[in-house]
Parts: sequence; C-alpha cells; structure tokens
Amino acid sequence: MMQPPTLINGVVVDRIDAGDRGLLYGDGLFETMAVRNGQVSSWPRHMARLLAGCERLGIPAVDPDQLSRESRELLAGIRQGVLKLIVTRGSGGRGYRIPEKILPRRILQLHPWPDFPATASDEGVAVRLCAIRLCHNPVLAGIKHLNRLEQVLARREWDNPQIGEGLLLDVAGCLVEGTMSNLFLVRDQVLLTPDLSCCGVAGIMRSIILECAEQLSLTAEIRALDIADLKAADEVFICNSLIGIWPVIAIDGRPYPKGAITSQIQQRMQAAEDNGSAWRP
Amino acid sequence: MMQPPTLINGVVVDRIDAGDRGLLYGDGLFETMAVRNGQVSSWPRHMARLLAGCERLGIPAVDPDQLSRESRELLAGIRQGVLKLIVTRGSGGRGYRIPEKILPRRILQLHPWPDFPATASDEGVAVRLCAIRLCHNPVLAGIKHLNRLEQVLARREWDNPQIGEGLLLDVAGCLVEGTMSNLFLVRDQVLLTPDLSCCGVAGIMRSIILECAEQLSLTAEIRALDIADLKAADEVFICNSLIGIWPVIAIDGRPYPKGAITSQIQQRMQAAEDNGSAWRP
Repeated sequence: MMQPPTLINGVVVDRIDAGDRGLLYGDGLFETMAVRNGQVSSWPRHMARLLAGCERLGIPAVDPDQLSRESRELLAGIRQGVLKLIVTRGSGGRGYRIPEKILPRRILQLHPWPDFPATASDEGVAVRLCAIRLCHNPVLAGIKHLNRLEQVLARREWDNPQIGEGLLLDVAGCLVEGTMSNLFLVRDQVLLTPDLSCCGVAGIMRSIILECAEQLSLTAEIRALDIADLKAADEVFICNSLIGIWPVIAIDGRPYPKGAITSQIQQRMQAAEDNGSAWRP
Repeated sequence: MMQPPTLINGVVVDRIDAGDRGLLYGDGLFETMAVRNGQVSSWPRHMARLLAGCERLGIPAVDPDQLSRESRELLAGIRQGVLKLIVTRGSGGRGYRIPEKILPRRILQLHPWPDFPATASDEGVAVRLCAIRLCHNPVLAGIKHLNRLEQVLARREWDNPQIGEGLLLDVAGCLVEGTMSNLFLVRDQVLLTPDLSCCGVAGIMRSIILECAEQLSLTAEIRALDIADLKAADEVFICNSLIGIWPVIAIDGRPYPKGAITSQIQQRMQAAEDNGSAWRP
C-alpha cells in the first residue's frame, strides 16, 4: 500500500514510536478535515474541538499556528484531499500513569479524497441500524478521541455496498449518531438532533448545520431521540465534514423521502460554500 | 528516553506505521506478562485471552507458536522483566471499515521490571476510589483491548505516591476493578470478585486466584458488588500478573486489616510458584 504523505512533529516520516500512548491506550485525539480548492474547510472549528479535547484529556494544548504551518507544508500544491490530524499524549509514563513531562505528538496525514457514491448528496443513501450499542461516558462524550473500537465493530456489521452508513443507539436505546456521521431528523418542520452529553462525537458539520438552521429561521432541538422519533420523522439526513449532507432515503428497508428541509439546508450550505462564507470560516 | 527492545512482526525495529489501526482507533489487543527466571509466567493463559480477544474483535488469530518464537528471541539472556505484546488489526481500510485483507501487526516489547513498592506484597497498599465511572459495553468487556482512555483518566486522578491503586465503579455504581488490577473482597470466609460481563478486564491473575481458591476449598463468588460490599468486607486485595497479590490496607483513609485468607492465598501461590506448578502453567 502506498503510504500517505505524513508529517510527525514537523518531520516528513511515516513511522511512529512503538511506545506512543496513542497506540498503547488510544491516548489522544484526531480531526478529519476536508481539503477543497487548496483550503482546509472549517479549520478554526476543527482547532477549537481539538483544543477542547486536549483540555478534557489533560494533554497540553498543541499550538494551532504550528499545526497551521505544518498543514500548509503538507498541503503544498494539493487542491483536494483529506487532512487527518492526530494528537497523542506522546511516549512515556509507567503504564496508564502519564509521564511527568508530556511531549504531545502531532501526526498530520494527507489522504486522497474518498470514493463516496457520486449520487449520495443528491439522491440520498440507504442506511441500517447497528446492533452494537454505544456506552455512556460523559467524560469522553463529544470529543473525537482515539478510542474508536465501538465504531470499528459497528462498521464491521455490514458489507453491502448499497448501505451507506450504520446508525447507532446507546445502551439506553437513544439514537446517537452514525458510525462516521451525525444524525438529523426533521419532523413538522422542526430540525432534531441527538443530545451528545453521554456519548457520541460533536461533529463540526453538525454545528455548522445548527447555525445554518438558525439563519434559515428553522427551529432546531438538541434532545434525546429514540426509535419512535426515527419512525415518526418526515426527513432524515446524516452529515460529516467530508460528505457534507447525505439525505437518508431508507432505514433497514423502510423508505424515507428526501424532503424539502434537507434540500433547503443543502442549498444554503452550498451557497455559503460558493461565496466562501458562513459554513467554511 | 531509552527505547525498550522491540520486535515488530519479527523484525527488530522500534517504529510502527503511522497508519496502524492500533494508533488510529485502538483497534487491537495487548498482554502484559511477567518474566521471571527467564520464563514468561502464565504464557498459555495470556495466549488464550489474546486469542479470545482476536475472536471477539474479528482480528485473524495470530499464531501462538510464532509469538512464542519471537518472544524467545526478544528474551534471550533476560532473567527478569516485563514482556508487553500488542496485536493490532494492522494498517489499511477506509475509515473505520476494516480492510479486505487484514494483516495483523505483532509488537513485542521488553521493559524493565517496574519499581513497585518493596513492601506492597507483605504490608499492603492504600488505595482510593476513583471518580470516573467505567461504561458498560458487553461487546468489549473482559478482553484486554487498546481502548484504555478510562484507565488513563482514572490514573490521572491522583499523584500521591502513597496511593498504590485506584478502584473503579461502573456507571451503575458497581465495583469493577482497579486501574491496573482486579479486585477481591473477603467476607465471612467467602472470596468475592466483581462480575465482569459489562465492563472490566478479566485478569490472568484473577483466574489463577479463583482456581487457587478452589484448591484451598474456599467458596468464591463472582457477582455484582457495590460500595456497601466494600464497606462490609473483612479483607480486600488487588492483583495482576506483575504485582501478584497486594493486600489493601486502606481505602480513602478507612483502614482494612491484611487478613488471614489473603495471606493464605498468597502463600499457596508462592508455594506453587516455587515448585513451578499450578499458577505458572
């Protein structure tokens, strides 16, 4: 396999210390960012979430300016792609105990743009409900940390290329998100998205959509949602920083329409993207 | 920092592909093994747990004979130390989705024996209750996977070197384990240890102690235990493959005696170790 270009703490190298705590314990965070027209979409939002994650885990904050310089170096001449950034607590410590002097490790990788289905944004995707349940851990909820076995196991549940995403419930039976996306429902003209205070990743595109809804004077509610809410929904869509918005047109075979509000939000965000404002700060 | 000697897929090298799924998602397992008198304690038990973990995560089983050969190579001339083995799902795949062809990565590292307090086995240690709660995930419970942020954050809760371990409750308020150890209580001559079907690591030393109890005709119960059980306990001890058994002599300042049954089990295990039988297969 071709190695993607990688910068580790500013050095072009594709290997990492086998004692890094990211490997040993998943002791770190990551961001997955879209590169379009040579620019990293929503860079300030990704940096803000990363710093919030560092704060939560007690990893000394990395310098966004340094990350910005290193990203520019890695992206020189690149128009489109995916910029993945991992920040770990670095090496050292005895067992779980963190070292006295923490030297975080910055790993920047450039990946090609994924081969998402070309029709997904316009025509929507079929999704499924996953069997695995997300566990409740308020301390880890919301941030994009490296402990992602739940998502790996959820993604292992299906192999049918016609299924574009798997939706996840938590141990209490509440809807949370997709394996790689956040979830929105529309019911009676109201935008609904799961509360993520117990589990889930607070996605950048999710926050952009919530702001977009405000601009469109759509009522949006962040609250507990369950299967009954899903069944009662007029429209369903999923989102992340790479896919933008994908309408959901079927859940385990039950059809959903690609509705007017989903289209309205998609158009608003496309317009904002085209004039370089709002949703790509 | 001196790098510990490392073998990755049989090659002496201390760096790992930055695209390894162990780093990206904690997609793998590990074992921490005691090396004493040039031998790896309880090797067959560690291999059995590792293979059970591979089965659970859907990682193609690694070959124990190959791991045994590689361990012998790494341990040549070594009398005492800690052998750490990590098995990851290797590199590749698109996002959380696993690659079609999985090439697991075997990372074997030799560490010096930790500087545990010399008196801990005989005189016991003071411990504390941690604030962070372990979440319930039956799919991940019992196995020693690489998603260990809960343990890292728990270990971050104290810095007092007089505290030898932190005990963890789960989200339901049940006792589970220590950050790096399993937990046993003794009450009315009965050995009690938490059920680990919702969370926790099923320790090798825990299983050895349960067999030892059987040999000593001690009644042992694996069941839900809570703070009330802890308060009512006559004796408390913790265990793992490196420390063996440490009596707990205080929990958040409340004293506990180092009791007769704890000593009896310690002696039995020491005797078995001395004649090379039973608890070191």
